[in-house]
Amino acid sequence: MTNDLKAQIGLINNRLSELSYGENPNELYEPIRYIMSLGGKRLRPVLVLLAYRLFKDDPESILDQALAVEVFHNFTLMHDDIMDEAPLRRGKPTVHEKWNSSTAILSGDVMLVKAYDLLLDAPTDLKAIITAFNACAAGVCEGQQFDMNFETLNTVSEADYIHMIKLKTAVLLGFSLKLGAMLAGADEQACEKLYDFGVHIGIGFQLKDDLLDVYADQEKFGKQVGGDIIANKKTFLLLKALELSNDEQKSELENWISATEFNSDEKVREVTRVYDEMGIRQLTLDKMNEYFNKGFEALNDIPVEEGKKRPLISFAEYLIDRDK
Amino acid sequence: MTNDLKAQIGLINNRLSELSYGENPNELYEPIRYIMSLGGKRLRPVLVLLAYRLFKDDPESILDQALAVEVFHNFTLMHDDIMDEAPLRRGKPTVHEKWNSSTAILSGDVMLVKAYDLLLDAPTDLKAIITAFNACAAGVCEGQQFDMNFETLNTVSEADYIHMIKLKTAVLLGFSLKLGAMLAGADEQACEKLYDFGVHIGIGFQLKDDLLDVYADQEKFGKQVGGDIIANKKTFLLLKALELSNDEQKSELENWISATEFNSDEKVREVTRVYDEMGIRQLTLDKMNEYFNKGFEALNDIPVEEGKKRPLISFAEYLIDRDK
Repeated sequence: MTNDLKAQIGLINNRLSELSYGENPNELYEPIRYIMSLGGKRLRPVLVLLAYRLFKDDPESILDQALAVEVFHNFTLMHDDIMDEAPLRRGKPTVHEKWNSSTAILSGDVMLVKAYDLLLDAPTDLKAIITAFNACAAGVCEGQQFDMNFETLNTVSEADYIHMIKLKTAVLLGFSLKLGAMLAGADEQACEKLYDFGVHIGIGFQLKDDLLDVYADQEKFGKQVGGDIIANKKTFLLLKALELSNDEQKSELENWISATEFNSDEKVREVTRVYDEMGIRQLTLDKMNEYFNKGFEALNDIPVEEGKKRPLISFAEYLIDRDK
Repeated sequence: MTNDLKAQIGLINNRLSELSYGENPNELYEPIRYIMSLGGKRLRPVLVLLAYRLFKDDPESILDQALAVEVFHNFTLMHDDIMDEAPLRRGKPTVHEKWNSSTAILSGDVMLVKAYDLLLDAPTDLKAIITAFNACAAGVCEGQQFDMNFETLNTVSEADYIHMIKLKTAVLLGFSLKLGAMLAGADEQACEKLYDFGVHIGIGFQLKDDLLDVYADQEKFGKQVGGDIIANKKTFLLLKALELSNDEQKSELENWISATEFNSDEKVREVTRVYDEMGIRQLTLDKMNEYFNKGFEALNDIPVEEGKKRPLISFAEYLIDRDK
C-alpha cells in the first residue's frame, strides 16, 4: 500500500472517529458505533476521495460525503448478517448476535437515514447526488434479494450470477467513484466513466474473492481455504463447473453438494480436483481479467492527465493483486 | 368525513395506484405493492395536502412528496411488524408471515429508499426538506426502540411515555404538515407552528387510541375492547393507574399483570373496574384534551385566514371524534 493511500485512509478514519450518530436511546445508537468500529479497509470512501482528486485537491472538504458511503455499506452488512444468520463479522459477534434481531433491524434503519444525512452538505447538485445514491441503494437491495433467491435454485446462469454480483457489490464501488467526481463538479461523461470503471473493477474484485476461496495460499489467506466449497456456495467457479461438466464430473459435483455427512478436507480436495481437471481456475482468471481490463479502459477514456490517475490505478492494482 | 376530505384521499389513492416501485426481483417489490394495497386512512399524505392548501391551491402538484410520507410510514409498519412478531396487519397476513423475515427486512429497506426518491422533485429547498425528513425518520426509529425498551421495564413515567409516543407516532404527523408548508414555500415560523400542531394532535391521537382500547363501544370499535389490558400493554391508562394506585389497587393490577392463566373477559372487567375506581378515564381525557388544545393553539398562531384552516380543523376533529 502506498503512503498516499495510507494518508487517504487516515483522513477517513480520523473523520470517522469524530462522527456522532446519536445518543438516546443508547440501544439504538451503540450498535452503530460498534459495527463502525470493527474496521475494514474503508475501500469505498477512499474511492470517493481518489475520484475527487482527479479533479480537485481538497479531499478533506468532502469527508462527510465519503463517509456516507461507508455508513451505507455497514448498514447493508448489519442487515445482511441478520438474513444470512451470520454469527461473526470481522472476527467479532454480529450485531444481531450481540444484541438481537430487532435491534439490528432498527439500528440498521437509522444508519441508512444517517447515510443520507452525511450527503446533505454536498457542495454540488444535491438532487443529482441523491438520485444516484438511491439508484445504487435500490440496486444493492436487489442484489441481496437475487443472492437469496439463488440459494434455492439448482443452477444459475453465468449472466445471472454476474448481474447479481454487479448489483450486490459492484454498483456501490461504481457509485463511490461517481460520487467523488460529482462532488468535484466533473462533467457527466467523466462521472459515468468512473462509474463504469468501479462497476467493472467491482465485478472483477468479486470474481477474485471466489477464486481466492479455492486457490488462495492458506498461509496468507486468513480464512479457511475452501469455505465456499464446504458451504456449497454458488460461486462463479461452481456455476461454471456445473455448466461445463461432463456427466461424470457433474455427478461427482452433485454428490458432494448433496452430501450431508462428509470430511471437509476431502470435500475441498475432491471438488478442487474436479475444478482443476476442467480448467476452472483459468476460466475464472480470464473472466476476472476481462472485467479488470474493461474497467481500465473506462478509466483510460477520462480526459485527465495520466499522472493524476496514478493513485486510483495503484489502488485498483492493490485490490487486484491481494492474496487475501 | 367531508366531501373535501374524500376528494383529498381520492387524489392520494389515485396517484398511489400509478406508482411503480420496481419490478425485478419480484420477491423484493411484490411485498411493497402488497403492504401499500392494504389500505388505511392515508392520514399522513392527506395532512401534507391540507397543510399545503393553507398557502397554495394546486395540491395535485405535490402528490409524490405527499406519498413519500405514506411509503415511509408503511416501511416502518413492515419492520415494526417483524420486531413485534405481529401476524396480521389490517386483517391480512403481515409481510414477514406471508413471505419471511429476510424479505420483510429487505423490502422495507428499499421502501425507505423509495420514500427519498419520492421527495426528490420537491419544488422548494430539497436540502431543508431532507434534513427535516431525516430528523423525523431517526425520531420514529428512536420511538420504536424506546417502546421496545419499555416492554422490559416494570414501570415507565408519564413523561417518558409521552416522549415515546411523540417520537413513535406524533413527529411523523408533525413532519407531514411541515412538509406541506415547506413545499408551498411558507415561512419558517408557519412551518414550525404546523409541526407543533401535528405533534400535539398526534400525542392526543395516541392517547385516544389508548382510551378507546378500554372505553370504546364494542359495537363500533372493530377490534376487541380490552386488547391492551389482556396483553399487559403499557398504555397511558395502565401507567397512570400504577402511578396513582393505593396499595390495594396496585396489588390488584400487579396480580392481573403477572397472571399467566386467566379468563380474558374477567381480566378486562376487573382492570377496568380499578381504572373506573381511580378516575383514569377522566385523567386520560384531560391529558388528551390538553394536547389537542395545545395543537389548536399552534394552528391558531398561523397568520392565514381562518376559512383556509377549515379543512385542517375538520380533519383534526374527525380524528379526535373517532370511535374506532
